[in-house]
Amino acid sequence: MKVILVGAGPGDEGLITLKGVEAIKNADVIVYDDLIGEKLLKYAKTGSELIYVGKRKGKHSYKQEEINEILIDKAKENKNVVRLKGGDSFVFGRGGEEVLALKKEGIEYEMIPGITSSISVPEIFGIPVTHRKVATSFTVVTGHEAGDKTEKEMQVKLSELNADTIVILMGITTLEKHVKELLKNPKRNENTPVAILMDGTRENQRMVKGNLSNIVEKAKLENVCPPGIIIVGNVVDVL
Amino acid sequence: MKVILVGAGPGDEGLITLKGVEAIKNADVIVYDDLIGEKLLKYAKTGSELIYVGKRKGKHSYKQEEINEILIDKAKENKNVVRLKGGDSFVFGRGGEEVLALKKEGIEYEMIPGITSSISVPEIFGIPVTHRKVATSFTVVTGHEAGDKTEKEMQVKLSELNADTIVILMGITTLEKHVKELLKNPKRNENTPVAILMDGTRENQRMVKGNLSNIVEKAKLENVCPPGIIIVGNVVDVL
Repeated sequence: MKVILVGAGPGDEGLITLKGVEAIKNADVIVYDDLIGEKLLKYAKTGSELIYVGKRKGKHSYKQEEINEILIDKAKENKNVVRLKGGDSFVFGRGGEEVLALKKEGIEYEMIPGITSSISVPEIFGIPVTHRKVATSFTVVTGHEAGDKTEKEMQVKLSELNADTIVILMGITTLEKHVKELLKNPKRNENTPVAILMDGTRENQRMVKGNLSNIVEKAKLENVCPPGIIIVGNVVDVL
Repeated sequence: MKVILVGAGPGDEGLITLKGVEAIKNADVIVYDDLIGEKLLKYAKTGSELIYVGKRKGKHSYKQEEINEILIDKAKENKNVVRLKGGDSFVFGRGGEEVLALKKEGIEYEMIPGITSSISVPEIFGIPVTHRKVATSFTVVTGHEAGDKTEKEMQVKLSELNADTIVILMGITTLEKHVKELLKNPKRNENTPVAILMDGTRENQRMVKGNLSNIVEKAKLENVCPPGIIIVGNVVDVL
């Protein structure tokens, strides 16, 4: 009984690792939630149990605790369980919570890292998160408003983040707020380049580029919508 | 004529992507520099040209300009060229410089992202770079002393970096200096957890854990040496 947390990568099914595919092939049970998961299910062996725990319109939406329970129950049935997640399990993927739940029950776990969208999506669009003499540090942060007060208090403000490159995940719907915060940051100004990257690594991927003074307007004109990534800093224009 | 920059991942040969392997299989020329590269050369087709441009004792050490030239020359010979790099090409991998050189010559390029050690190595050791209510942001930074003055001036100081989790690459030999800087940071203190992760995802991988007050001494006792990653923040102890 073992649970393997597999990062499925950013969307392009070719961006899963060899080890990730191997784990899917050997799994008795696959617990998946992201759209990428479905494309990768073709590697599952005949007779394996496929459990969808994602959020889809009109379907039951699983709470984290319910997902943990499924992983624990299936592992206790002596099954090889794969938990398949978009991106990487430990980059805003709640993988840590699942590992904690497994450890509490004494269930063995293994991590197979995935390609995180936070670095790979800019990369596919020709934007390096680091570049010599331009950016020697990058920060990845969630733009998603924290769920409760304690969490909100601990969240680092975009007005204070001082790495050279800032990558904001899940921040498209709150873009205007983020831009206001970024403009308060002494390291940024109206000319600081920004790019919004939508559906990265998928066929319909698109980018809207601008700077902190015009990106909000450009985003409106171009009908920017989630899911997407915001990247801020001089690297946006470097290549 | 096209150059594909392929990220080979952190060391474990199973952590390259499907797309990365495909590119290696189809390459006429493979330009590689990291140890991981060699393990992956088994995928190269018969008769492909393998060019080692890494740094090894007693061998010619290639400058970035020389590597760029090889890529350009081989592409101009109408060859499918793969540039194979450890980790991800855009995370302190100088991929951007190679892309700029290719663009200048009008040569087509493609990026195939790789698993970066900055996230995956902590992950393999059970350390998530983000974790709910513990870390909602992480910064990756180089601990390598910048080569020239302008670069040094632009480098963000560890005493100022304010993301919840800090991952320092190439910082082992200068550990003591980094710890001093981190202790000046109002977000850290003597009890802030630190882990040093060596040879991550390889068979001989090992970890030294402590906090900002004792990690320097522990590192000496445990003969810590490069290559390795330093990770700082409460996530170190969360799982």
